[in-house]
Amino acid sequence: MRLIAKLIDIGTREVMLNIEDSRNIGVLAGDRVQILNEARGVSVAAFVDTTTTIIPKGSIGVYRITNERMGLADGESVEVRIAERPVSLRHIRKKMDGEPLTKDETYEIIRGVVNEDLSPAELTAYITACYINDMNMDEIEHLTRAMVDTGERLTFHTHPIVDKHSIGGVPGNKISLLVVPIIAASGLKIPKTSSRAITGAGGTADLMEVLAPVEFSATDVQQMTLKVGGAIVWGGATNIAPADDKIILQEYPFRIDARGQMLASVMAKKFAVGADLVVIDIPVGARAKVTTVQEGRKLARDFIEIGDRLHIQVECALTYGDSPVGRAIGPNLEVREALRILDGSESPGSLMQKSVAIAGMALEMSGKAARGVGAQVAQDILKRGDAGKKFRQIIEIQGGDPDIRADDILPGSHEFVVNAPATGYVIEMNNQSLISLARTAGAPHDRGAGILLHAKKGSRVEKGQPIFTIYADRSWRLQRAIEEGRKLMPVLVEGMLLDRVPHESRWE
Amino acid sequence: MRLIAKLIDIGTREVMLNIEDSRNIGVLAGDRVQILNEARGVSVAAFVDTTTTIIPKGSIGVYRITNERMGLADGESVEVRIAERPVSLRHIRKKMDGEPLTKDETYEIIRGVVNEDLSPAELTAYITACYINDMNMDEIEHLTRAMVDTGERLTFHTHPIVDKHSIGGVPGNKISLLVVPIIAASGLKIPKTSSRAITGAGGTADLMEVLAPVEFSATDVQQMTLKVGGAIVWGGATNIAPADDKIILQEYPFRIDARGQMLASVMAKKFAVGADLVVIDIPVGARAKVTTVQEGRKLARDFIEIGDRLHIQVECALTYGDSPVGRAIGPNLEVREALRILDGSESPGSLMQKSVAIAGMALEMSGKAARGVGAQVAQDILKRGDAGKKFRQIIEIQGGDPDIRADDILPGSHEFVVNAPATGYVIEMNNQSLISLARTAGAPHDRGAGILLHAKKGSRVEKGQPIFTIYADRSWRLQRAIEEGRKLMPVLVEGMLLDRVPHESRWE
Repeated sequence: MRLIAKLIDIGTREVMLNIEDSRNIGVLAGDRVQILNEARGVSVAAFVDTTTTIIPKGSIGVYRITNERMGLADGESVEVRIAERPVSLRHIRKKMDGEPLTKDETYEIIRGVVNEDLSPAELTAYITACYINDMNMDEIEHLTRAMVDTGERLTFHTHPIVDKHSIGGVPGNKISLLVVPIIAASGLKIPKTSSRAITGAGGTADLMEVLAPVEFSATDVQQMTLKVGGAIVWGGATNIAPADDKIILQEYPFRIDARGQMLASVMAKKFAVGADLVVIDIPVGARAKVTTVQEGRKLARDFIEIGDRLHIQVECALTYGDSPVGRAIGPNLEVREALRILDGSESPGSLMQKSVAIAGMALEMSGKAARGVGAQVAQDILKRGDAGKKFRQIIEIQGGDPDIRADDILPGSHEFVVNAPATGYVIEMNNQSLISLARTAGAPHDRGAGILLHAKKGSRVEKGQPIFTIYADRSWRLQRAIEEGRKLMPVLVEGMLLDRVPHESRWE
Repeated sequence: MRLIAKLIDIGTREVMLNIEDSRNIGVLAGDRVQILNEARGVSVAAFVDTTTTIIPKGSIGVYRITNERMGLADGESVEVRIAERPVSLRHIRKKMDGEPLTKDETYEIIRGVVNEDLSPAELTAYITACYINDMNMDEIEHLTRAMVDTGERLTFHTHPIVDKHSIGGVPGNKISLLVVPIIAASGLKIPKTSSRAITGAGGTADLMEVLAPVEFSATDVQQMTLKVGGAIVWGGATNIAPADDKIILQEYPFRIDARGQMLASVMAKKFAVGADLVVIDIPVGARAKVTTVQEGRKLARDFIEIGDRLHIQVECALTYGDSPVGRAIGPNLEVREALRILDGSESPGSLMQKSVAIAGMALEMSGKAARGVGAQVAQDILKRGDAGKKFRQIIEIQGGDPDIRADDILPGSHEFVVNAPATGYVIEMNNQSLISLARTAGAPHDRGAGILLHAKKGSRVEKGQPIFTIYADRSWRLQRAIEEGRKLMPVLVEGMLLDRVPHESRWE
C-alpha cells in the first residue's frame, strides 16, 4: 500500500506503522516490510513497530538507519509491502531442532547478522540454539570463515605473522602490553586487535587507550604493523569479523560464551589479520572460564584443530587462573605495572613470568628461539630494554606520547585501604568479586579506578596489615565500592570471621 | 549521574543515551539503567539504546512507555544509574544449561514477561531454551499457573463451565461458531476466548468479528456468559494470561510451537476463564501440527495430565487434519458457511459432523447427554434451530446484528475460478498452500478474501470443471494470489501435469 513517509531520527532499522495499516498489509510488530522508493529505484526491508497514536493511518514512520539506504524526504510517498521472511530464519529453526548447519546456511545467517537483516531476538535464538546444540568442527570452521569473509582482512607479504589471545576471565591480565612488544622487538610482526571490557575491569584495548588512541581502520593497522612490527588496537573500530561483536553483545545478558562460538570468534580474528602462528592463553581455575586442566586440554585441542583447518599453527598455554595476574586491576594501575616491567622492574614476578612464557612460545614457533629456550630469549629481550623501546615506538605510531613514564600514570585520587581483619594466610582471592569491585569503583571508564593487591594468595598477613587498596576517580564511586566490598569480601584471610551476627559485618 | 530528560514519543520501554554517558554509567546498548524521579519518588528500569548524535552528552532520551511510569516533564533533571541485572536472566541461563526450573523461577520469568522487564531477545532465549530442552510436567504446570496468576480471571458461581480448544493448523476450522452455540443452547456456560490469525487465514476471533465486536474486558465476558450462556471474544483484548500473547509473538518468526509452551498456553486460558470441562480438538495429518495418531495420543495424555493437576476435566478428540474443514477458507466465506448450517443446511457434512462430535463430547462430560449419544444430542440441538437462536443471542449481546442472514455476508468482489487441468481424482489438498493463498488474497484483514473449494480430497473431477475459487476484496491482491497459486498448486488432480518445461506452467 502507499504511505506517506515521516522521518524519525532514531538510529534503528525500523519503521512505525499505524496498527490499522499493519493489519492491512498483513504484518505484526516484529515482522518485516519491504519499502520501495521508486524515484531512486531502491527497495529496503525494515522491521515493523506498530502504534495506535504516534503515526496516523496512511503514514509510515521511517527510522534513520532505514532511511540511510532509502534516501526519502519527509512527506514523500512510498510503496510498502509485506517482505519475504529471510531464509536464515529457517536455518536457525533447523539448528534449534538439533541439526547441524551447512556452510551455505551458516554464511546466510552471518550475512544476515552483519547486514542487520536479523533482529536482536532472532540472533539470540541462533546463539541460544548453538549454545545448547553445540556446533561440530565443520560448523565451527564454517562460522569462522563466514565471520572473516563478511569483514575486512589484512594481507602481509612477509611471513610469519604472529598473534596471541587470552580467553579471559582473570582480572589484571595485562600481558599483551608485554607480549606484543617482546615479539615485535624480536623482528616478528604482530598486528594485535583486542577488545574493550564487556564484563571485565579493563580489556587490552581499554588499557592501551591510557597510552594512545586505539581506534584505527584495518588499513591503518596494517601500515603501523609494517612500520614498527606491531600495534595494539581496538578490534571493534576495524571492520574485522564484524559479526563477532554483534554476537558477543547478545550473549552478554546471559553471561554465556558458547564453546563453538568462542572458538570461531577467536580464530576469525586471527585468520582475518593474516596470522600464521598463534599462541592462546587458557587460564584454568575454579573461578576462571575453564575450571579443570582436562577441560583446558580439550579446548586447546579444539583450537589447534580449527587452526589446522585454516592453515594457522596454534599452540596453547594452560595458565594459572585462580587469582589475578600481577597485583593491579583497572586501566591506569595495570598500565603502570606493565610499563614498570618494560622499564626493568622484575616485580610482580607472576606477571613477568607469564608474559615471557607466552612470548617465548611464539618465538619458538617462529624459529626465533630454539625449542625450550623461548622464555629465556623473551626475557633477554625484555631485560635488554628492547621490548620497552619497541613499546614506545608502538605508542608513538598510534599517536601517543612515547616519553611517558610509569609514574606519570596515576591511580584515582580517592582511595580506601582494606586491612587484614586477622593474622593468617590469604586463602581466597575471588576473581569475580575483584572484577565486580573494580567495576563498581568505575573501571574501565574511570581510568584511575581499580584495585591494587598488597598480599597475594597463599601469603601470610598480620592483623591490621593492608591487603588491598580500592582506587576511584570519583568519591561516590569509592563509597559504593566500599559498600559492595563489605558484602563480597573478595579476599579472605584464614581465621577471619566471615560475618558477625546480628550487627553489620565490617572491616576494621 | 544526573541527566536532562528529553521526551521521545516512541512506544517502547527504552531510553537513549549518548555513547559517552553510557560508558560513564557503565552500560552497553541493551543493558538496563535505573532512572530516579526524586520529585515523585518513582524509580523505573529501562533498556538502553546508545547514539553518538541524536542525544547530546548530559541528556537522556526518555521513550513514552518508560515515561508512563516516570511522569517526567521535558527538560527535567533525573538521576540515572546502572540497574541490577534481573534475576530471571539467571533462570533463563539455567534452562539453557538443561536444568528444569522451579516454580519460583518460572513465576519470576513470567512476571518479567508481563511487566516487560525482559527484552524481546531475552524472552526469545527463554523460548528457544524451552523448545530445545523440553519442559517436564511440573514445569508446564508452573508455567500454566504463572500465566494465569499474572493476569485476570473469571469466577463463576455456577458449574460446570465448559470450554473447547483446537490446536490449529487446519484451514477453515470454523467449528467454534457452531460448538459454542450448541453448548450454550444445552444450558451450559461457555465463555470462549479465541485468537486472531497469526499464521492462518482467520482465527475464530477474526471470524466472529464479521458478525459482532470481539474486544471485551474479562468482566464483560463474564457478564455476557452469565446472561446468554456464551460469548466468542478475542482473548488478546482481555487481560487473561497476558504472558501468552507475548510468548507467541516471539515464537512466530521461527514458526515454532514448543510442546510445553503450547500445553501451558492452552490450559492457562482455560484455567483462567474458570473452565471445569474442556474438549481439545487435535487435528492429525501429514501437513497438520500433529502428524501421527501416536503423537496425537501422547499430546492428548499430556493435556489430560495438566488438566488433572489443575482440577480441570479434559478430553481430547483426534480429528482428520489432512484437508480443510468444510469448503470455505477466509472470514466472510467461513462465517457464511457456519451460519448456513446453524440455519438448517446439512452441508458441508464434514463441518457439521466435526462440530456435533466435539460439542457432543462436552455434553457427555457434563452429563447433559449419556455416554455415546452426545453427538446425537448436539445434532438435535442444531436441527431444532436452538443453536442458531443461541448464536443470534450471542451476536446481539456482543453488539452485532442478530438478524443477519448468511446471504448478507458476501465474499470479495474479485474472483478467479481454477478449473481442473485434467480428469481424475483430487489427490492432494495442501493445507499450508491453501492458507498461504488465502493470506495472499488478503485474509484475514480483507474479510471477503479467501478460497472456496468446489471439490474435496478424493472426489472425482472432469477436466475443465471448477476445483476452487479465489476471492479478494482488492484486484491487485487477487492478481498476486493467482501468481502464487501457479507456483504453489495447492490442489492436485491425479494425472495433471505438475509442470511444463520450458514454458511457464499455467492453469487452463
